[in-house]
Amino acid sequence: MEEKWRFKGNEELSQASAVTVRGVLNMVMENLNGDDPRPVIPLGHGDPSAFPSFRTTTLAEDALCAAIRSAKFNGYGSTVGIPSARRAVSEYLSKDLPYKLSPDDVFMTIGCTQALEAIVTVLNRPNANILLPRPGFPYYEARTGFSHFEARHFDLLTEKDWEVDLDAVESLSDENTVAMVIINPGNPCGNVFKYEHLKKVAETARKLGILVIADEVYDHLTFGSSPFVPMGVFGSIVPVVTVGSISKRWIVPGWRLGWLVTNDPHGILIKQGVVASIKGFLNISSDPATFTQGAVEQIFENTPSDFFDKIVNTLRESAKICSDRVQGIPCLTCPSKPEGSMFVMVKLNLPLLDDIKDDLDFCRKLAKEESVVVLPGVAVGLKNWLRVTFAIEPSSLDDGLRRIKSFYQRHAKKQ
Amino acid sequence: MEEKWRFKGNEELSQASAVTVRGVLNMVMENLNGDDPRPVIPLGHGDPSAFPSFRTTTLAEDALCAAIRSAKFNGYGSTVGIPSARRAVSEYLSKDLPYKLSPDDVFMTIGCTQALEAIVTVLNRPNANILLPRPGFPYYEARTGFSHFEARHFDLLTEKDWEVDLDAVESLSDENTVAMVIINPGNPCGNVFKYEHLKKVAETARKLGILVIADEVYDHLTFGSSPFVPMGVFGSIVPVVTVGSISKRWIVPGWRLGWLVTNDPHGILIKQGVVASIKGFLNISSDPATFTQGAVEQIFENTPSDFFDKIVNTLRESAKICSDRVQGIPCLTCPSKPEGSMFVMVKLNLPLLDDIKDDLDFCRKLAKEESVVVLPGVAVGLKNWLRVTFAIEPSSLDDGLRRIKSFYQRHAKKQ
Repeated sequence: MEEKWRFKGNEELSQASAVTVRGVLNMVMENLNGDDPRPVIPLGHGDPSAFPSFRTTTLAEDALCAAIRSAKFNGYGSTVGIPSARRAVSEYLSKDLPYKLSPDDVFMTIGCTQALEAIVTVLNRPNANILLPRPGFPYYEARTGFSHFEARHFDLLTEKDWEVDLDAVESLSDENTVAMVIINPGNPCGNVFKYEHLKKVAETARKLGILVIADEVYDHLTFGSSPFVPMGVFGSIVPVVTVGSISKRWIVPGWRLGWLVTNDPHGILIKQGVVASIKGFLNISSDPATFTQGAVEQIFENTPSDFFDKIVNTLRESAKICSDRVQGIPCLTCPSKPEGSMFVMVKLNLPLLDDIKDDLDFCRKLAKEESVVVLPGVAVGLKNWLRVTFAIEPSSLDDGLRRIKSFYQRHAKKQ
Repeated sequence: MEEKWRFKGNEELSQASAVTVRGVLNMVMENLNGDDPRPVIPLGHGDPSAFPSFRTTTLAEDALCAAIRSAKFNGYGSTVGIPSARRAVSEYLSKDLPYKLSPDDVFMTIGCTQALEAIVTVLNRPNANILLPRPGFPYYEARTGFSHFEARHFDLLTEKDWEVDLDAVESLSDENTVAMVIINPGNPCGNVFKYEHLKKVAETARKLGILVIADEVYDHLTFGSSPFVPMGVFGSIVPVVTVGSISKRWIVPGWRLGWLVTNDPHGILIKQGVVASIKGFLNISSDPATFTQGAVEQIFENTPSDFFDKIVNTLRESAKICSDRVQGIPCLTCPSKPEGSMFVMVKLNLPLLDDIKDDLDFCRKLAKEESVVVLPGVAVGLKNWLRVTFAIEPSSLDDGLRRIKSFYQRHAKKQ
């Protein structure tokens, strides 16, 4: 007898996950040729932790192990985060702000991912819409899509170093628009917004009555002419929710410690019920490990500045290798050199290629023939571009870009 | 000029979180009297990690620190969990099963909490309903409530050692019922289901065509006449999704490592799209820390059996203190002695009390007058009962129960 089962999986979950970076990279990596004796060069994702030049400081490991050995952090923490961690993050971020954050402004999360999930869930309501950058980070699309939260896209302007198209922000928004997202330093573009531009973003959002969500997971990873300016600097113009983590600056994305911070000197987020709703979200969600929260104060205090300098110098060197080598590959153009984060967007000139249909086709064939993994731009909203990660060991990066050049030469259109 | 802000917090999040154990305990603890020189006795929650008798084994700490020091686990893991962790959990759980789990049956989660969130999200669809035990663990109500997933409640039978009322399960279910939840060893009742009863649960679920979700977060914490039998034993009768973690057996709830496991030798969960949907959920969610996953194999291998014996013996001793002392408090009755987990349900005989309105009133006044925190039964679905945690240092438990007796004597109805 055939049983009739009454349960089935939610298909929207499978759909939502198909648009994530990991989902698209899996599609690319399926084409890798296991018989290639050369190492795979991963230029697709933002996690250089496996490379010697990007190993985290042992002082951070010391802090974590000390917290574990103390046996003070084996139990559940408070759902908003343990007090010492909230205080440590508020002090760490306040250094770059014209006012002082309170520990109550800080909510500890399981990496930046959970912080994003929290704010998207908190702001969602029937008919609401949210403005997202294009190109952007597809996790926002996955989460809003799964929650039936309408996403509208404003462009980042290629010809203006990927600044926000503020005219588009104004024309896209209506009375149901609740927030806009900026990612600074930029993923996927490697740009760094200037103070004056961020101020204009704040003024536009205030005019529209919308919240600014500032994704600053790559904070302080800048190596060009523009310094990192946190969006929270403009918190008195418009309420800002900042999301961040130790994942990128300390090169420990696997440690899963992040934060959601309200930059809101006028208390608007409390008045609008956003803070109560953030607490509600965290009450029904899992928490970051208590000992990692217990270690964060020491991680901040003990990390020597030369660790940060070394990481930033390595990124600067890698970004230069990337820009230089890309210049020598005719089918690729890079409209602006990266100044921050771990990525650069390069445009694919398909007419120069013989048998490449589009960016995904390029990446699949590249993976197969050269064992180099690159993210097709379609994954971040720009078809026929590529997102190239330069945050890997410089020698591997050089090798990877040479292989891309060989790939081009083999596929170049015959004259 | 008053600005008009277009965003606000989602009120359903605040509502969902009000029904959690933490939410209700916060209401009770607001009444604690800071001037009482005696220590607060926490009989309200399932986290004894702060007590010396319940300190985790240093060998687990060693495994965690070794994983951190190796620097092999600083990066992102796979969203389903890293292969070594999935393998370790499959082997650990297979020891108690009549068949062997595959690593592919195991999904690593951020504690048991995320595993529950995952399966509730995966099974939810318009008009579906899920059967939950009463009394139960209110996180299920919070999550289903927030997701608009209809919950129907079957009783656990007081007079039958808290067995599932299987007649109620049958009469509550209809063509939209997708799953039933059992918690074994029992939270909040401290009961342990017998093999024959679990088999009947499986047969009932199969007849109804519904999935069994087995919450086994307290697995192996049994000290009475019934041994722990995992529901997965009956996976060939009905598909079973087991959720668990290292939180309770190793007394490290703050480490946040759990799992969701499909016990499904006939592959029904794959066929019904449940497995694809679990993967989809995990692709758009945060992960447990990679180094904790990296340590789990060594945690399983290195923990000496005398650590488990010590914990179980302490629980047995505490449960006995609890039963004995409760017998001496006329306003409390305990229909069955606890045989597992960390809790017991006791009935409040309100007619014996002078000025106590209900269980919440009892707990608030008890907190205020005696600095003892107990969870009112209303939080777990049984009004005018109490959930008492016996998993604390035995001397503190004894102190706490003596204080409850004093409280009774002061509030007893005059003859």
